[in-house]
Amino acid sequence: MTVGEAGEKEVLARVLGQLSHADAAAVGPGDDCAVMRLAGDLVVTSDMMIEGPDFRLAWHTGFELGHKLAATNLSDVAAMGARPVGLTVSLACPRDTKVVLLEEIARGLDAACRTLAPGCGVVGGDLSTAPVLTAAVTALGDLEGRPAVLRSGAKVGDVVAYAGQLGLAGLGLSLLFAEAADDAGIAQAHAVAGLRASHPEALAAQLTPDPPIVAGPRAARAGATAMMDVSDGLSLDAARLAAASDGTLAFDSVALTAAFGVQGGQAVSVAAMLTGGEDHGLLATFDRAAALPEPFTAIGEVRQRGGGGAAVLLDGVPYEPRGWDPYRVLPPGA
Amino acid sequence: MTVGEAGEKEVLARVLGQLSHADAAAVGPGDDCAVMRLAGDLVVTSDMMIEGPDFRLAWHTGFELGHKLAATNLSDVAAMGARPVGLTVSLACPRDTKVVLLEEIARGLDAACRTLAPGCGVVGGDLSTAPVLTAAVTALGDLEGRPAVLRSGAKVGDVVAYAGQLGLAGLGLSLLFAEAADDAGIAQAHAVAGLRASHPEALAAQLTPDPPIVAGPRAARAGATAMMDVSDGLSLDAARLAAASDGTLAFDSVALTAAFGVQGGQAVSVAAMLTGGEDHGLLATFDRAAALPEPFTAIGEVRQRGGGGAAVLLDGVPYEPRGWDPYRVLPPGA
Repeated sequence: MTVGEAGEKEVLARVLGQLSHADAAAVGPGDDCAVMRLAGDLVVTSDMMIEGPDFRLAWHTGFELGHKLAATNLSDVAAMGARPVGLTVSLACPRDTKVVLLEEIARGLDAACRTLAPGCGVVGGDLSTAPVLTAAVTALGDLEGRPAVLRSGAKVGDVVAYAGQLGLAGLGLSLLFAEAADDAGIAQAHAVAGLRASHPEALAAQLTPDPPIVAGPRAARAGATAMMDVSDGLSLDAARLAAASDGTLAFDSVALTAAFGVQGGQAVSVAAMLTGGEDHGLLATFDRAAALPEPFTAIGEVRQRGGGGAAVLLDGVPYEPRGWDPYRVLPPGA
Repeated sequence: MTVGEAGEKEVLARVLGQLSHADAAAVGPGDDCAVMRLAGDLVVTSDMMIEGPDFRLAWHTGFELGHKLAATNLSDVAAMGARPVGLTVSLACPRDTKVVLLEEIARGLDAACRTLAPGCGVVGGDLSTAPVLTAAVTALGDLEGRPAVLRSGAKVGDVVAYAGQLGLAGLGLSLLFAEAADDAGIAQAHAVAGLRASHPEALAAQLTPDPPIVAGPRAARAGATAMMDVSDGLSLDAARLAAASDGTLAFDSVALTAAFGVQGGQAVSVAAMLTGGEDHGLLATFDRAAALPEPFTAIGEVRQRGGGGAAVLLDGVPYEPRGWDPYRVLPPGA
């Protein structure tokens, strides 16, 4: 059955049937708004993902796509040191889309919330039509009385630390474009199974990322001075944190390689770590005296930004930040 | 200059340049999340609008589109009895979209917030690429210590009241399809100027709706027992409120005609009032003893739902609810 055949009421009922209750929702889906009760200040972030530039249904199952939609937004909430409490999800698709695809996406959204951020769930959203599958997610978090951890708080001498996978998701995307896309960069479903078997860690990082959401509030409690979600490539996002904090982030390739050179059996180069994109791990800075909370690993330090100085250094040498620009970067196969 | 030529950083800077500060935003755009400080429970609603099914750039200026995006979402917040405090806005467009269009949309968003909900503003969002212009808005509101006004609280004997324009926006859409679209329903820009001159109220209601946002919290303070935003047609939304409250909404055509039969010089039929869509006024119920707050007008009463009884009556006769279904309804010209 397609969404055009089912109509909005039936599609909505089927999608809502996949969703668990969110603990903080005094009123869930079904009224003009959801109502949320929070203990502290609210954090809010929004993101839109569109079939073509942002994902390809030839590679993702609906469940995996829903999981990724949730995970990537929960990560932005965690990066403020907040606990995720709810998502709103707007889905638009062509009228000939199967209802079961939207149900699978909803199941993936719900599963990611339950796994990565227990107590969080989908509290509202919208259904519409569009030329291609389009998903807009807003994630809400509760600071629970803590101040938000901003990008701007890093101090000279702080330890630079990272939690999560690094470079694997970008490697997964490169593999998909190399092995599961035609010469024009169009995704081909048939080759994905082989890649899942040969490169399980890289494919999982790309298709169903599992960012360390609980590490966000943990870092805040441990006194993180600055933090951000790494989504566009470590070097590019590090340059943003460095700019916000008026410092330089100096990475150490030996520390990077020791911590992230082999992830789940998959070798990852330092270049892949610094430019991969879609990592959705947490980049944070801590006072040198602080004990790093699990699973953060030290990978560098904050230095003074010299006049005209670089935002990012690798082994003391300026490193040109590179990563993802939605309007400019073309996929590797294009 | 196109967004593809400018790149994300430049587009973002230009869009952010159009936006005012939101009073409740402790941290605005630029970090992983915005941070909002609220006095009471949070209400949250999300909506997605896509060029083609939801709007047509041949009819709307960018400013008007931004205004409408904000107004329609602010209205959902007001319908809970909450004060709007912030919007997040995700915009996706083709790479050859002019940057100035996104700037105009941002100006319209900001102007609608300043006019309709002073203190509210855009606090975050996202930029991406899509085959057609796509906008996803999330609106946040503060209940300021009041309980939310739900759809489910209407009691038998309550007065049914309405605030805002009614039927004009649907009339505007019909006029646009009749006079400013080709035989295939494709919007044609050249005829819009004439319609704006001949039917200013209907065109304004469709292109730049001005819902009575401040009336939402006012209704809550006046003891509204139930409330909702009317977006899909009064009869269809009334049936939803009736179902949630397990009652029947009985409309009086004399009262409807007296209050809404002529709006700004434009005659509106009762049928247009009941089925128009995109009104974004507030439908509310009040105890019979309550004084109706401005600008609410009584248009009916809540009655007991008989066994198998109708959700909506007009002059005592069952009225089949009709309105907008995004997956089923085709535009009049298609």
